[in-house]
Amino acid sequence: MAKRVTGPEIEKLIQLLAKVPGLGPRSARRAALHLIKKKDQLLGPLSLAMGEAYDKVKICSRCGNVDTSDPCTVCTDIRRDHSMLIICEDVSDLWALERAGAMNAAYHVLGGTLSPLDGVGPDDLNIRALVDRVSEGTVKEIIIAVNATVEGQTTAHYITDQLSDFNVKITRLAHGVPVGGELDYLDEGTLTAALRARTAI
Amino acid sequence: MAKRVTGPEIEKLIQLLAKVPGLGPRSARRAALHLIKKKDQLLGPLSLAMGEAYDKVKICSRCGNVDTSDPCTVCTDIRRDHSMLIICEDVSDLWALERAGAMNAAYHVLGGTLSPLDGVGPDDLNIRALVDRVSEGTVKEIIIAVNATVEGQTTAHYITDQLSDFNVKITRLAHGVPVGGELDYLDEGTLTAALRARTAI
Ligand SMILES: [Zn+2]
Ligand SMILES: [Zn+2]
Repeated sequence: MAKRVTGPEIEKLIQLLAKVPGLGPRSARRAALHLIKKKDQLLGPLSLAMGEAYDKVKICSRCGNVDTSDPCTVCTDIRRDHSMLIICEDVSDLWALERAGAMNAAYHVLGGTLSPLDGVGPDDLNIRALVDRVSEGTVKEIIIAVNATVEGQTTAHYITDQLSDFNVKITRLAHGVPVGGELDYLDEGTLTAALRARTAI
Repeated sequence: MAKRVTGPEIEKLIQLLAKVPGLGPRSARRAALHLIKKKDQLLGPLSLAMGEAYDKVKICSRCGNVDTSDPCTVCTDIRRDHSMLIICEDVSDLWALERAGAMNAAYHVLGGTLSPLDGVGPDDLNIRALVDRVSEGTVKEIIIAVNATVEGQTTAHYITDQLSDFNVKITRLAHGVPVGGELDYLDEGTLTAALRARTAI
């Protein structure tokens, strides 16, 4: 803005909101005004919820999920079948797969994919913890649910190699997933079909 | 989500983010994960900025702008020409007009438009304060910058009537072709207005 039309606290709020994915500079102003108009219903509660998340959020040391407890809600859920492990790139994929509701498995979040061009090697991903976890002997089947990208498939092969000494069945998502597509954007039906039609590697 | 995959604090954060304009339920999850990943750069600062805005935000009792001081930054800006008053519907319009940077005027925010069907009458808008303000005698020109909707134009006429006893020049925004706009996409009303208000090159 050429000249100041509002206080620095509100300009700061707009600047920070503009960094939230899904909001640009224009949407950020719109969002800030909406929050201010809904001061008691939205601005106050959201500020508190963010503060709580800031204080309590943890990365699960077992699976890489985001939670306020470690181990996380998924890892400590005794109603899940912990002999089945779904490996995904990101927490958003774990959440998307859970929304599909097709499996009752445990998860392991890699935190990315192998990408030599970006300098991402095996040690930058949550792979060593995966091998340790599988070596415990509980896991009988692993579903590699990475994105259908070149990096995703490279990562899938690397993981398959790393786990070749263990007596586990390793499958991957069926090609119901559009090539080049990202899991997080897919509808539940597509994700469910891809899980059900998983194939041996 | 069918089953819980994360703590209640994070689910609460997602629920509240989904109420922010520009974010839906899916974008809210994405935004929450991004905020958590950028905990110290974004989540913490945004929580604090929202808390500060919550504590300090005020509606300017003079013009209806949103600020942390009352009267607001615009009303107390002595470098502005306070003899010129731009009337708009919403604070977002005030901010948009300021970004245009075309005028150096003061503002008056109505807080909506007359809309009998929605039960919005003159007393629901910031009109009495406008009349009081004009009666002080400083204002010499008023630009009515309401939306080019039926409600906006009705409101403009009502305000013009209310201010008919004062010696002020009242104008409204010109209709015409948006800069960069393609004629092909414009409605007949806009094209007709643009033709009638044609200017010499
Ligand atoms: Zn976990
Ligand atoms: Zn003001």
